[in-house]
Amino acid sequence: MSEELVGRICAELTKIVLVDPHTHINPHAPASTTLADIMGYHYYTELAHSSGMPKALIEEPGLDPKTKVGRLVESLHHLDNTVQVSWLVELCRKFFGFQDNRITPANWESLYDKAATVMAQPDWEDQCLKQSGIERVFLTNEFDDPLTGFDTARYIPCLRTDDLVFHFTNPAVRERLTKATGIETTNPERIRQAIGKLFEHFVRHGAKACAISLPPSFAPRQPSRGDLSETNFLTSFLDPDSTTKDVGQNFVFWTIAEFCAEYRLPFDLMIGVNRRVYPSGVYQGQDLFDQRVSLIQYRELFNAFPQVTFPVSVLAQASNQELVSYSWIFPNVVTNAHWWYSNIPAYIELDTRARLQAVPRNKQVGYYSDMYKLEFAWPKFSMYRQCLSRVLAQDFVIARKWSENEAILLGKQLLRGNVESIFNV
Amino acid sequence: MSEELVGRICAELTKIVLVDPHTHINPHAPASTTLADIMGYHYYTELAHSSGMPKALIEEPGLDPKTKVGRLVESLHHLDNTVQVSWLVELCRKFFGFQDNRITPANWESLYDKAATVMAQPDWEDQCLKQSGIERVFLTNEFDDPLTGFDTARYIPCLRTDDLVFHFTNPAVRERLTKATGIETTNPERIRQAIGKLFEHFVRHGAKACAISLPPSFAPRQPSRGDLSETNFLTSFLDPDSTTKDVGQNFVFWTIAEFCAEYRLPFDLMIGVNRRVYPSGVYQGQDLFDQRVSLIQYRELFNAFPQVTFPVSVLAQASNQELVSYSWIFPNVVTNAHWWYSNIPAYIELDTRARLQAVPRNKQVGYYSDMYKLEFAWPKFSMYRQCLSRVLAQDFVIARKWSENEAILLGKQLLRGNVESIFNV
Amino acid sequence: MSEELVGRICAELTKIVLVDPHTHINPHAPASTTLADIMGYHYYTELAHSSGMPKALIEEPGLDPKTKVGRLVESLHHLDNTVQVSWLVELCRKFFGFQDNRITPANWESLYDKAATVMAQPDWEDQCLKQSGIERVFLTNEFDDPLTGFDTARYIPCLRTDDLVFHFTNPAVRERLTKATGIETTNPERIRQAIGKLFEHFVRHGAKACAISLPPSFAPRQPSRGDLSETNFLTSFLDPDSTTKDVGQNFVFWTIAEFCAEYRLPFDLMIGVNRRVYPSGVYQGQDLFDQRVSLIQYRELFNAFPQVTFPVSVLAQASNQELVSYSWIFPNVVTNAHWWYSNIPAYIELDTRARLQAVPRNKQVGYYSDMYKLEFAWPKFSMYRQCLSRVLAQDFVIARKWSENEAILLGKQLLRGNVESIFNV
Repeated sequence: MSEELVGRICAELTKIVLVDPHTHINPHAPASTTLADIMGYHYYTELAHSSGMPKALIEEPGLDPKTKVGRLVESLHHLDNTVQVSWLVELCRKFFGFQDNRITPANWESLYDKAATVMAQPDWEDQCLKQSGIERVFLTNEFDDPLTGFDTARYIPCLRTDDLVFHFTNPAVRERLTKATGIETTNPERIRQAIGKLFEHFVRHGAKACAISLPPSFAPRQPSRGDLSETNFLTSFLDPDSTTKDVGQNFVFWTIAEFCAEYRLPFDLMIGVNRRVYPSGVYQGQDLFDQRVSLIQYRELFNAFPQVTFPVSVLAQASNQELVSYSWIFPNVVTNAHWWYSNIPAYIELDTRARLQAVPRNKQVGYYSDMYKLEFAWPKFSMYRQCLSRVLAQDFVIARKWSENEAILLGKQLLRGNVESIFNV
Repeated sequence: MSEELVGRICAELTKIVLVDPHTHINPHAPASTTLADIMGYHYYTELAHSSGMPKALIEEPGLDPKTKVGRLVESLHHLDNTVQVSWLVELCRKFFGFQDNRITPANWESLYDKAATVMAQPDWEDQCLKQSGIERVFLTNEFDDPLTGFDTARYIPCLRTDDLVFHFTNPAVRERLTKATGIETTNPERIRQAIGKLFEHFVRHGAKACAISLPPSFAPRQPSRGDLSETNFLTSFLDPDSTTKDVGQNFVFWTIAEFCAEYRLPFDLMIGVNRRVYPSGVYQGQDLFDQRVSLIQYRELFNAFPQVTFPVSVLAQASNQELVSYSWIFPNVVTNAHWWYSNIPAYIELDTRARLQAVPRNKQVGYYSDMYKLEFAWPKFSMYRQCLSRVLAQDFVIARKWSENEAILLGKQLLRGNVESIFNV
Repeated sequence: MSEELVGRICAELTKIVLVDPHTHINPHAPASTTLADIMGYHYYTELAHSSGMPKALIEEPGLDPKTKVGRLVESLHHLDNTVQVSWLVELCRKFFGFQDNRITPANWESLYDKAATVMAQPDWEDQCLKQSGIERVFLTNEFDDPLTGFDTARYIPCLRTDDLVFHFTNPAVRERLTKATGIETTNPERIRQAIGKLFEHFVRHGAKACAISLPPSFAPRQPSRGDLSETNFLTSFLDPDSTTKDVGQNFVFWTIAEFCAEYRLPFDLMIGVNRRVYPSGVYQGQDLFDQRVSLIQYRELFNAFPQVTFPVSVLAQASNQELVSYSWIFPNVVTNAHWWYSNIPAYIELDTRARLQAVPRNKQVGYYSDMYKLEFAWPKFSMYRQCLSRVLAQDFVIARKWSENEAILLGKQLLRGNVESIFNV
C-alpha cells in the first residue's frame, strides 16, 4: 500500500477540529504544569513498574516532580518500543521543541525545564487545545460534582455512575448522594428520586452523556417488584457482603437507563474491566480484564430502551466482533472508539477495518482520548488518524476504488460528524 | 504487496465454474424479478433499520416493491461503507448496466426499471447463473419438502434439521413430521424411524448434505437408555418448558448423525447463533451470537462419528482458531467457508490465512454464498476471491516463493475441487 | 511494505547465535538419524492422518523407517500448503542438499538416502547446531530424570511438573517420586519435602526453569490448612475419582511455585491445553483446546509470588491480548513465544505486533522451537524471524521512523538478550 496515499489522507484528517467525547480532564486544571504531570500518567508509571522499577520508588510520598521524572526516565529504555512512550515523545516534540527520538538520562533535564517554561505560559491551555485541533472536551464527573467554576461550553459534563451502581452499599457513597440531592435514600423510590435530581442537575449544566464502566460479569436486568420489597432492601442495597446485592446494582443501573431515556442522554457503556486485579500495582495500574464476556449480557437492556443510544466501548479485543454485530443489528447500539487495552494500533486497525466494513457509518464514534491532561489529545488522536488512514487507504481507496475525497469524508464523519450527531453537541 | 499480482490470481480464480455448497435459494423462484427482491435481503433491511429507519416503514403491509426500494435507498448514504452495500452496487453494475458507484435518490428509479426489464427475460435464471460462473447450487430444504418440481441436478437438496432438533416439542413440527413420513412419533424408536424415512426421501432426490444451525450453548451427547425411558418421554420430547428437553434435542440430533453415517451424507454444523436476540428487529434481522463457545462441546460427536464428515461453519471469528485446530487434528472435521457475521473481508482474510497455513488443503471448503436469490452469488464470491487472492499472493507467492500457478491451483481447490470431493458431487 | 527492508532486517537477525528456551530434545539422542525421525514429528503424522491416512498405516508396529517415510510422503500433496510442511522442506534444503520445492513420491527416496548419509556423520549434532545458529538448548525433563550422561552446559535442564500436579493420584507417579527422592509421600509435608529434593537436584544440575502445561479449567489457589487436614488427604491426593482432587493439585502446584521462589527459577506456564480430546488420534496428535480461558484465573498466583518470574505461553490466540495486558501490568509476567496451535505466521504476526506495541521490551521472550529433534530449530526460528522482521519493518521502521539498526536491536533482544536475562543463562 502506498505510504504516500496514507499520508495524504492523514493530512486531511488532521485539518478538522475535534470534539473529544470521553476524557478524564479536570476542568479546573486541564493542562499540565510539569513533565511530572505528563509522565505521572498511569501508562508510564505502570509500565516502569512492570519493567522492573519498585512501586516505592515511583510513589514515594513527598517526591518532588523533577526527581520523579528523573526516576521514570531510567525505565524508558525498557519501554521505548511501546506506543504509549511514542505518545510521550511525540507530544514533547510537538509542544516542547524536543528534537530527539528518545528521552534518556542524558537529555531529560533540559526537556523538563523547557516543558515547564512552555506550560507556565498563562494561555497554555488555549494554546495546547489549538495546536491539538480540539475545541470541546467531554469530562467524567463524579455524580456529586457541583459542575461550577469552569466553562461548560468547552468542558462538557458527563455523569459517571460507577459509584452509584457498584458502591451503593458503601455508606460514604450514599451520604454523598444525600448531600448532593437532599434526599435520604431509604427505599427504592427515594433512590429513584435522588438519581432523578442528579440528572436534572447535570442536564441543566450541559451534560451530554451518562457513562459507566462495567465488570465482565455484569448482566443488567430489570429487578422485579418482589426483588425490591421492603424486607429485601436492607440486604440488597445496604449490605456489601450480601449475596443479593446485584438486585441493588440492577435497580440503580436500570433507573439510570430510565433517566437517560427521559433526559435523552446517551449512556456510554464501557464493558469489561476487572478492578484491582493487581492490588500492589501503582495508582491506576491495577485493573485488568477477563475476555470471557459477551454483549448478549446486555440483550435485555438494549431491547428495553430503544430510545436510548448506547455508545459501547469494549476492553477485550475479542469483543469487537460482537460490538460490530450488535451495532449492525440494534439501532441503539453504537461503536465507541478503542478503549485502554484495545487502544494500540495492532487492535485499532483490526477493529476499525471490521467496523467500517459492517456498521452503518453514522453509528461509529471513531475515537476519544481518555486523557487526564490536555497534552495527550494530540499524540493519541494522531495514532488513531494513522490507523484510520491506513484502513481507508487499503480497504476503500485501493480495494474498493473509492476516491480519496470519499474516503476522507468517511474519516471525518467518524472523527467529528458522528460525535456531534450522536451526542447532540 | 503487488496489487497486480493479486489481480492476476483473482482473474484466474474467476474463470472456474462453481458449485455453491450452501444457499437458501427457492428452486421454484431462484432469481429476482425486481430490485425489491434484491434489496429485501435482510442485510439491507436490517442495516437500514439499524441506521435509523423505523421497521414500520420497511415492513409496511401491502407495500409495493418500487416504493419499498425507494424507501430503502433513503438509507444507503448511511450504509455505503458496508461491504454488504458494495455487493449490491457490484451486482447492479454486473447485471443491470448500472454505471454509478452509488445508488441514490437521484438514480435509483432508472436502475429499478432497467433491472426489472433485465430480470423479466424468460431465461434470466440461466443468464444469471452463467454470468456468475455457477453451475450447481445447494439448497436448504425443510425436512418435509417434497423436493419435486425443480431440477435436482442444478438445485441440490440439503436436509435442514433445525426444526427437528430444536422445535420438536412444538406440536406443529411433529405433525409435519408425521405427515411427511406417515409415522406417529410416540416414542424414540418411532422418531428414529421417521427420521430414517426423511433421509431415504432426501437421498433418493439427490441430497448431498444434512445441515443444522446451533446455538452457542449446545453440546451434543448421546442420550443414555435411561434418558429415553417411557416415563421421561413426555417431558423430554413433548414439553417445551421442560428442564430435560435437551434429552429430546440430543436424541434427535444424535439420530440424525447416525443417519448421516448410514447414508454417507456430510453433516454441516453451523455453530454459534442465538435466535431472536432483538425480537423487534426486521425479518431475519434479529439473531446475534455469544462468542463464548468452543468446539470442545462437539468432542463426543466428532469421536463418535469418524465416518461422518462435518463441514463446520462458525459464527464468531474468535472460533476460527479452534476450527483450524480441530480440522488439523480430526480427520472428519472440515472448515466450511465464512458465515454471516464473519463474512466480511476483515475476518475472511484473517481466517483464510490461518486455515491455509495449518489445515490440509483437501479439507477446506472455501466459500458458499448463503444467498436467497441467485444475483448474490456473483458479488459474494467476488469478495471472497479478492480476499483469497490477497492471501495467496502474500503468504504463498511472496513469502513462500510459490509460483503463481501453484497458488492458483490451491485457490481452485478451495473454490471447486473440495466442494466436489467433500460433498461427493 | 518493502520486501527488501524485511529481508535486510531478517538477514541481521539470522546472524545472532541463539539459546532455545524450550524444547523436548532428548539430550542422549538430540539429532535425527533418518528422515523417519524428522517426519515422525507429530505435526506430520497428525496432518497425514487428518488428511485421510488411517492411523494404522502410520503407526503399524514394527514399521521400518524408510517404509514409514514412504507412506507419509503419500500424504504430502494434501499438506504442502501448511507451514509445518514448509519447515520440513526448508530443513531438507538447508541440511540435505534437497533442491526441489516439494517432497513427492518421485523424489523422496534419494532425499531419504542423502539425509541418512548426512546424519550418519559422527559430528552431525554439532554441525546441525552450528548451521542452525543455536548454542544452548533448554530441555523438558521428567521430574525423576537423573540428569546425567549429557552436557548440561549445552542442554539445560528444565523441571517439567505436569505429572506431579495432574497425575499425583496415579500410584506410579508417587512411586517415581519416592524412588527419586527417598521420601514416602504420606502427607502434605512429606510431599513438600520430596518436591524440595527435586528442586535441589535440578538446580544442582544447572536447571534454569520449571515448567508445566495447564488445562483451560485450571485456576490455581493456595489450599487452606483445613483443605490439607489428615482426613482429607486420602481423597484429595490419592483418589483419582475424588471430587476434591483439585485440592491436591493446588497443593502440589502451589508448593512448586514456592520452591521456584526459593530457588529463583522462572516458572513457565503453558496455559490452555485439553489432553486426549481425540483419543483415536496418532501419538501426540490428540490434544486440543478450549478458547474460553482467562489469565484472571492466575490472579491469586501472580499476586502471591511477586519474586517469581512467570514466562507465560498461551495456546489460544484469543488469549494473546490478555497476555499482553497482564505482562504490561504485572512485573512478574513475561510473554513467552508462540505455542503450538498459535505457532503459525498468521497468529505470530498479530501477536508479535501487539506485544511489541504494549509490553516492555525486556519482558518478551521472542521464540522457542518446542522441537523434539535439533533439525527443527532452523526452520522454526526462520519462520519466526520472518514474522518478526515484518513487524519490525512495518510498525517500527516505516510507521514510527525507527532506524533499521534500532529495529534490529529490538529484534535481537527478543531473540537472545531476554532469554539470557529472564532465564539467567
